[in-house]
Amino acid sequence: MTTLEVGKRLVELCRAGKNREAQDELYSPDIVSVEAGAPPGQSPETRGLAAVIAKGTAWAQAHEIHQARTDGPFPHGDRFAVVFEYDVTRRADAQRIQMHEVALFTVANGRITREEFFYAM
Amino acid sequence: MTTLEVGKRLVELCRAGKNREAQDELYSPDIVSVEAGAPPGQSPETRGLAAVIAKGTAWAQAHEIHQARTDGPFPHGDRFAVVFEYDVTRRADAQRIQMHEVALFTVANGRITREEFFYAM
Repeated sequence: MTTLEVGKRLVELCRAGKNREAQDELYSPDIVSVEAGAPPGQSPETRGLAAVIAKGTAWAQAHEIHQARTDGPFPHGDRFAVVFEYDVTRRADAQRIQMHEVALFTVANGRITREEFFYAM
Repeated sequence: MTTLEVGKRLVELCRAGKNREAQDELYSPDIVSVEAGAPPGQSPETRGLAAVIAKGTAWAQAHEIHQARTDGPFPHGDRFAVVFEYDVTRRADAQRIQMHEVALFTVANGRITREEFFYAM
């Protein structure tokens, strides 16, 4: 799969709410996932497919998703960007939040090897 | 200026239609600008402030802008992303086009040193 094909498939699966399936199908076992920031003492970086899937599962369990919008993919060489917008309620404190972020994915040999999330904190 | 401050200023100037002023104020003399693609025989890469300003001026002259939308900045470390949407008419063939792209900017010492444009071709 080309970078563009990987990007299109990722967006297709995210739009269907199948983010977990996208990780299984498209992510490298050596995926590195990097947040824009992290609480003090925690790393913004998560390494390896099992840990990245666990991070996604934890996020999904901590939020009730009312609406999600996925724009893209926007390709450039071996990378592509995707724009995500989420309208969610954080279960911990019942606060409703609008999230808007850009994700940058790097592809090698038809698999996503790196994802970086861009957002204001 | 921090990366976030540079990003906010860039978005502010772009929203005011002052893209040229943004280049003067925020770009490094050694700016490198990279398109997602280029016609055969042409480089996607433009180096140096004068050449990058000339590229921007040529684009502005070649298009009539009906509407522009700028979302961001979305920061991550020494980089930030901006989402651009343009509704333009290409003067060469009078074709009306909707453009949607992600731009990724790298900042060093308070100046933008690299811009990369992500879009489908």
